[in-house]
Amino acid sequence: MSNDNVSPASSQKPRAIVLLSGGLDSTTCLAWAQARYECFALSFSYGQRHSSELDAARALAKRAGVEHRIIDIDLRQLGGSALTDDSIDVPEDQSDELPGSIPVTYVPARNTIFLSYALAAAEVINASAIVIGINAVDYSGYPDCRPDYIDAFAKMAALATRAGVEGNPITIETPLLQLTKAAIIQLGLEHGVDYSQTISCYQADVNGYACGRCDSCRLRRQGFLDAGVKDPTLYQAATNQD
Amino acid sequence: MSNDNVSPASSQKPRAIVLLSGGLDSTTCLAWAQARYECFALSFSYGQRHSSELDAARALAKRAGVEHRIIDIDLRQLGGSALTDDSIDVPEDQSDELPGSIPVTYVPARNTIFLSYALAAAEVINASAIVIGINAVDYSGYPDCRPDYIDAFAKMAALATRAGVEGNPITIETPLLQLTKAAIIQLGLEHGVDYSQTISCYQADVNGYACGRCDSCRLRRQGFLDAGVKDPTLYQAATNQD
Repeated sequence: MSNDNVSPASSQKPRAIVLLSGGLDSTTCLAWAQARYECFALSFSYGQRHSSELDAARALAKRAGVEHRIIDIDLRQLGGSALTDDSIDVPEDQSDELPGSIPVTYVPARNTIFLSYALAAAEVINASAIVIGINAVDYSGYPDCRPDYIDAFAKMAALATRAGVEGNPITIETPLLQLTKAAIIQLGLEHGVDYSQTISCYQADVNGYACGRCDSCRLRRQGFLDAGVKDPTLYQAATNQD
Repeated sequence: MSNDNVSPASSQKPRAIVLLSGGLDSTTCLAWAQARYECFALSFSYGQRHSSELDAARALAKRAGVEHRIIDIDLRQLGGSALTDDSIDVPEDQSDELPGSIPVTYVPARNTIFLSYALAAAEVINASAIVIGINAVDYSGYPDCRPDYIDAFAKMAALATRAGVEGNPITIETPLLQLTKAAIIQLGLEHGVDYSQTISCYQADVNGYACGRCDSCRLRRQGFLDAGVKDPTLYQAATNQD
């Protein structure tokens, strides 16, 4: 990522690194951020089972006209989550987990690793913000999706970086933090997001069709229902409930 | 990294992830940590120019009898430092940099990325600590080598992880934080470290011979002088000053 890829004169907006997974939330974030920042998208190939998500991220960044980097990190080397460890099954329904317990789809320290790379990228291109689609409503079981966590990361980041030392700490923007899925969808539609291009499913097929059964699919489907908007998700034939 | 690679019954000591670069400081940390913890070493292949450091880390971990993982991360994709960006020269003498300025060998957010991976690894194996050879005496110019930074990372980590949520936050141990290079060498010698096996040079050759001229070599050489100990470093012929 080069500091002079984009001439400062090309935009009056401050720069931001936007974490883009290719899912509904991060795509909404990108659209929101483009109204405020000159955006650079960052995705991670982290041994996730659903690589079609990265194809979606690539296409979405291209459509948005933003520079995009995919960073290859192998969390499989560490294991410990149903999303990266083949020996742990992805549950189709996590609603029977104990209230307050951490879901098996939680990936240890994932957001911390992602935000750390974003911090490095932000320093290199002199970005003033990192935008991440963390949500504390639907993902209250994940420790690293809570507001206190984000505040603590921002404090650490201010001490960790050249920008912070020089008095201009890089901020962590979480526009979706307290929004319901329906409100996120409304926000995205206001910013022109085409949700048929986004993939949320934990086990989408190679063409990006969603299973319709996993926790992420359930939350997403309910979001469109609650928002009173037709669900444009491409479901695998057997589970297409449109 | 498997949670049951080592049976809990095999050791009464709590577990720790030790960040091991193969240099003088981290090797001292590993020796220190082995007296207190059941240790698991973690190294990073991050596009550093001196890959002989990783060979040293491999050999040192083997000699110490600890499980060792090398995580491949490509900071070159992000650029921004003389240590990872071929377009920036490694200075032979940084002493003419402005006091309080950040050296060009600073790698953006490097320690934050390393500690984030260590945090993930610690969660997976139920380690109670991460040990890192950060030093605030010789590296005061690096924002992410300061005590305040480590404190902030630990606070963030407590909020980020399952262990933290469950009331047993993973601690960040920095046994070298306030030690001079001479004191670090003394500590290592007390724990049986063979410093001829460690590599500190920013531009060591493929056989691990040090340049003797870069900032890291200067600090190291002075450390042995101040400790009153013969410098066992293998220098490239032209600069061998023994």
